[in-house]
Amino acid sequence: MKLYDFGLAPNCRRVRFFAAEKGIDLECVTVDMMTQEQLGDGYRKVNERLTVPMLELEDGTKLTESVAICRYLEEMQPEPPLFGSGALGKAQVEMWHRRVELDGLVAAAEALRNSAAGFRDRALPGPQNFEQIPALAERGQRRLDAFFAMLETRLAESPYLAGDTFSIADILGVVVVDFARAVKRRIPEDATHTARWHAEISARPAASA
Amino acid sequence: MKLYDFGLAPNCRRVRFFAAEKGIDLECVTVDMMTQEQLGDGYRKVNERLTVPMLELEDGTKLTESVAICRYLEEMQPEPPLFGSGALGKAQVEMWHRRVELDGLVAAAEALRNSAAGFRDRALPGPQNFEQIPALAERGQRRLDAFFAMLETRLAESPYLAGDTFSIADILGVVVVDFARAVKRRIPEDATHTARWHAEISARPAASA
Repeated sequence: MKLYDFGLAPNCRRVRFFAAEKGIDLECVTVDMMTQEQLGDGYRKVNERLTVPMLELEDGTKLTESVAICRYLEEMQPEPPLFGSGALGKAQVEMWHRRVELDGLVAAAEALRNSAAGFRDRALPGPQNFEQIPALAERGQRRLDAFFAMLETRLAESPYLAGDTFSIADILGVVVVDFARAVKRRIPEDATHTARWHAEISARPAASA
Repeated sequence: MKLYDFGLAPNCRRVRFFAAEKGIDLECVTVDMMTQEQLGDGYRKVNERLTVPMLELEDGTKLTESVAICRYLEEMQPEPPLFGSGALGKAQVEMWHRRVELDGLVAAAEALRNSAAGFRDRALPGPQNFEQIPALAERGQRRLDAFFAMLETRLAESPYLAGDTFSIADILGVVVVDFARAVKRRIPEDATHTARWHAEISARPAASA
């Protein structure tokens, strides 16, 4: 299986981290977003959505959307379960994973893509160009306040985001916390539970995949 | 099981439609978003995220995030499978469901919530107030062009969004197409494949749940 990938992109790191936790080796093909390689004719022939990550299976089938890729890997290699176990466990992973996406990943991406010079006219990924909206960058920063508060409240009561077991919600949580450094955000100094969780998960070998 | 629900909200309709396809009866408790009941003290005690839908289980466990609720129902009542079957099938449903969310639901919600008087200072759901950003409403409209184009291209080659089988991607697709009427968008007149698909799915009894 071939993963079209870019090291710094949070959605790519989510997939690499997830695959490494499963012990799945992926052949990574770098698409250099720093030089906008994902918008060039070469990659357009590979993926007309112009997004990374993309997984290409042995038979040529292509999967985009990072969670779809993770879901495929979960089904191919169920152990350890990273989308939860049992009806309620799976629902709680879905819930926490989505909260991290909505409140954290989207907020950080909006803050970065609507402010950084490198994303001029590229406020959203994909084939359409969209101009930056400065108010959206500012809103993203305010939403990150709420995201860090949510993490701390939750991690004061639970070892992992979705409960007692490590899951994709924690993978994405750490990816977002690290990604938020690009918009000058760090774990608040008094957020000791978040710091404990972040340190523990960052020490997992898969975190550096 | 009790569903805190509001008839017109697309995320609520996604859950009701999904449950009805499964033949699952939910006790619906209306939270009147027209009068901002979801922001009042009563509902704050029920769900501090101030969002609908929310599912409350018999034992009092609460699930927010509409897809987490659907995932719980899928696990409790696996037939018919609406999140796909097999590794690739499940991944393809996840991929198309996410494309409809990202390109359609988010775009329509941004177009509506950043323009309608009723959403003044409520550009996002949840406990924080956010002012409307007119540029985001306008961007949402442009993204809906791409969404309708994506639907037509896909449905010209496939009976359902994720392939040969009806899934949650189709449920959300129809929910978004209908929701987009709130921002004056209809299926383009020349989008015959989309019209065929929309008519077929709208005729399912669960579509009016």
